[in-house]
Amino acid sequence: MDAVDARERFARARSARLASVRPNGAPHLVPVCFALVGDTVVSAIDSKPKRTGRLQRIENIAREPRVALVADHYEDADWQRLWWVRADGVARVLSAGSDEAEAAVDQLARRYAQYRETRPSGPVLAVEVERWSGWSGA
Amino acid sequence: MDAVDARERFARARSARLASVRPNGAPHLVPVCFALVGDTVVSAIDSKPKRTGRLQRIENIAREPRVALVADHYEDADWQRLWWVRADGVARVLSAGSDEAEAAVDQLARRYAQYRETRPSGPVLAVEVERWSGWSGA
Repeated sequence: MDAVDARERFARARSARLASVRPNGAPHLVPVCFALVGDTVVSAIDSKPKRTGRLQRIENIAREPRVALVADHYEDADWQRLWWVRADGVARVLSAGSDEAEAAVDQLARRYAQYRETRPSGPVLAVEVERWSGWSGA
Repeated sequence: MDAVDARERFARARSARLASVRPNGAPHLVPVCFALVGDTVVSAIDSKPKRTGRLQRIENIAREPRVALVADHYEDADWQRLWWVRADGVARVLSAGSDEAEAAVDQLARRYAQYRETRPSGPVLAVEVERWSGWSGA
């Protein structure tokens, strides 16, 4: 799959998974809702870190900003319809309430009704994608 | 979500994503089909490394055996039905054709018709899960 196709499939996906590296060197992985703006993947970081460990990703990228995201499609009946796309890039945190974070949340709210009902108020993770890659069973 | 519930949800999922760490320190992420045997997640590594980069994970775990797997459920209509489960553990490679690998492939073939039609003949990744965790919107 070429980079253009990979990017387009990713852009249409409704959720993805974000891999980062913990300060101790082990990988960390969580699902995310996201919006793709140009080649930047933005996702909201909510305010319940104790329950979901979502601040872990902020701690992780402070030490190792390189991250990977995957969006994929699985179905049992026909593996020819399987596909996945990976976005490798560099992450940074947009401070809660900053102009950049607000613009990113606007994009997230356009994509998700739940974010229109309850607008995310925390920081935003912004991943500048440096490489789009993927695979399709077709 | 407690560890028992997390493990049960993971066991029923049909696909997951595997995060490892590349030798250069960046995270690596791919979807996998898997079988859970006790607290070991096994997945086949196919023989098309050039196309899909699947040997990357073998290179990765040789240097950093710690990995993370996530299975999740997303639906737009109702975020209360969202859930995800993470398995943090340590990976090793079972050599193609070894008794351990064959036993793992038997388990994979029980779960996936495609593996019964075309039995995987390559090495198998075995992740001993040390921690089950998860989150549910309910």
